[in-house]
Amino acid sequence: MSARSPQEVAHLAADTMWANDPTSRELGMELVEIAPGRAVLAMTVAPHMTNGHDTAHGGFLFTLADSAFAFACNSYGDTTVAAHCSITFVRPGRRGDRLVATAQEVSRSGRSGIYDVTIAREGVTIALFRGHSRTIGGSFIAPAENAPQSSDSEAS
Amino acid sequence: MSARSPQEVAHLAADTMWANDPTSRELGMELVEIAPGRAVLAMTVAPHMTNGHDTAHGGFLFTLADSAFAFACNSYGDTTVAAHCSITFVRPGRRGDRLVATAQEVSRSGRSGIYDVTIAREGVTIALFRGHSRTIGGSFIAPAENAPQSSDSEAS
Amino acid sequence: MSARSPQEVAHLAADTMWANDPTSRELGMELVEIAPGRAVLAMTVAPHMTNGHDTAHGGFLFTLADSAFAFACNSYGDTTVAAHCSITFVRPGRRGDRLVATAQEVSRSGRSGIYDVTIAREGVTIALFRGHSRTIGGSFIAPAENAPQSSDSEAS
Amino acid sequence: MSARSPQEVAHLAADTMWANDPTSRELGMELVEIAPGRAVLAMTVAPHMTNGHDTAHGGFLFTLADSAFAFACNSYGDTTVAAHCSITFVRPGRRGDRLVATAQEVSRSGRSGIYDVTIAREGVTIALFRGHSRTIGGSFIAPAENAPQSSDSEAS
Repeated sequence: MSARSPQEVAHLAADTMWANDPTSRELGMELVEIAPGRAVLAMTVAPHMTNGHDTAHGGFLFTLADSAFAFACNSYGDTTVAAHCSITFVRPGRRGDRLVATAQEVSRSGRSGIYDVTIAREGVTIALFRGHSRTIGGSFIAPAENAPQSSDSEAS
Repeated sequence: MSARSPQEVAHLAADTMWANDPTSRELGMELVEIAPGRAVLAMTVAPHMTNGHDTAHGGFLFTLADSAFAFACNSYGDTTVAAHCSITFVRPGRRGDRLVATAQEVSRSGRSGIYDVTIAREGVTIALFRGHSRTIGGSFIAPAENAPQSSDSEAS
Repeated sequence: MSARSPQEVAHLAADTMWANDPTSRELGMELVEIAPGRAVLAMTVAPHMTNGHDTAHGGFLFTLADSAFAFACNSYGDTTVAAHCSITFVRPGRRGDRLVATAQEVSRSGRSGIYDVTIAREGVTIALFRGHSRTIGGSFIAPAENAPQSSDSEAS
Repeated sequence: MSARSPQEVAHLAADTMWANDPTSRELGMELVEIAPGRAVLAMTVAPHMTNGHDTAHGGFLFTLADSAFAFACNSYGDTTVAAHCSITFVRPGRRGDRLVATAQEVSRSGRSGIYDVTIAREGVTIALFRGHSRTIGGSFIAPAENAPQSSDSEAS
């Protein structure tokens, strides 16, 4: 019998998501850390992500935070989507900044979860994001090889 | 003397923003309508905007709404930025959908404004966005040719 | 056979809620209008609702908006609760102001709804509220007298 | 010369606010902790705070969180108001529950601040609140006795 640990599930979930998410890869995002309920992504602000003032377009900051949120809320291996997100822009991001988005679960109850994401540049907060997730399906990762067949069919 | 009408200012502001916003252009956005406090943008969901399930990545929906918001809150010609935004995903967007984002001002008081953006596909709401703006500077459009020189030096 | 019209259901739902909501009554709220997906409540800012500056405590403004939201999202007669709410304070409310909160549905899909509430004083916006609702149970109003007994047992 | 420490300022600010906030007192709130950028308030759900299902009215939960937020964002002694707040109701509060609201600053930049408030019952999260503040004036606490007269006339 080889039940997976929560950390193994989180890694598998991240691998599966990464393979299916060309957007995050094309934007140059990098998965720095993954754990149950937590994900850290990094991205450098490319010239094409800025507007006329060389400040990062809010859409890219949102996309970075949203991706970190997605990795964190899917880290249990069950299909989970964003229902509602809010973002506050605290300071502008600049061309060339390496931004780090840290997503941390703050609540999970039934099928609903809340995740806080902080985007920082060298430790200084650029933006704060709060995401509300909704689990809509069962496991999206391959079952463990010698797991009993019924093991993930009882998804709530 | 040729004072510009609010509608002329909105058009000039949109032209200036469009010229400085490669992101919106590269994503294939199209400016459908502009007026004081209002903007309508359209975008078709390209294959690279979807995830493994062929549903539009939330980041692209946010970016579309955020752009419509930016055009609307800058339509008076004064430099205005996003301070806080929230978005609710009501239905998934699909590959090939032509999405229309309609931004409408709901409040403006001092330097603060609130704009509601609805993203719809053939009249059906896909997402609702509410943006809070902050005016941070004076006019960013070229002064009217025969306007008195001091005309935009009294920016609040 | 006497099927109720949506407007009759909205009235019955409001009557039932009003009877069970001592808070709204004690705060002096008044139901001005009720319709499917819509409710208008009014309240005068009493001295005990203000702080040291004679401006209305944000908690009372929220409570007024939240009550209008509750009447609107329960107007179909199915038990519906608030999941997430946001409020922006645009202008201060003052002692003695008669405030009118207008709640209007902007989206309803499955068990989830979104309602916008505007609080105004003589037509000037004081606060904007957006509420996200979740329907959690079946009908809470008495069945129509000669309705078939099973009529509301098939609540989803 | 007796410059006050940040902790002394936070205590003085809380005393001043408490004296001017009959609402929080009448609702039976209790100030558990105060520090720069942080405040903890407790309140027991009284029968009149519940609706027909004996669950706490969302307006009272919001008011508790909003008060904790106000104490935290005013803890530097400068007049600061709520601009935008959001609240997510995670679990219902019940009659008789002793609820503890913990407000913690997560960002402060210029005149804008962001504070997260968690409402919990015996350590279990009931609601999550995020408040955006705006500092609108100078110090509202009495100047230190032997401070130079001009000390708080240079409000930012």
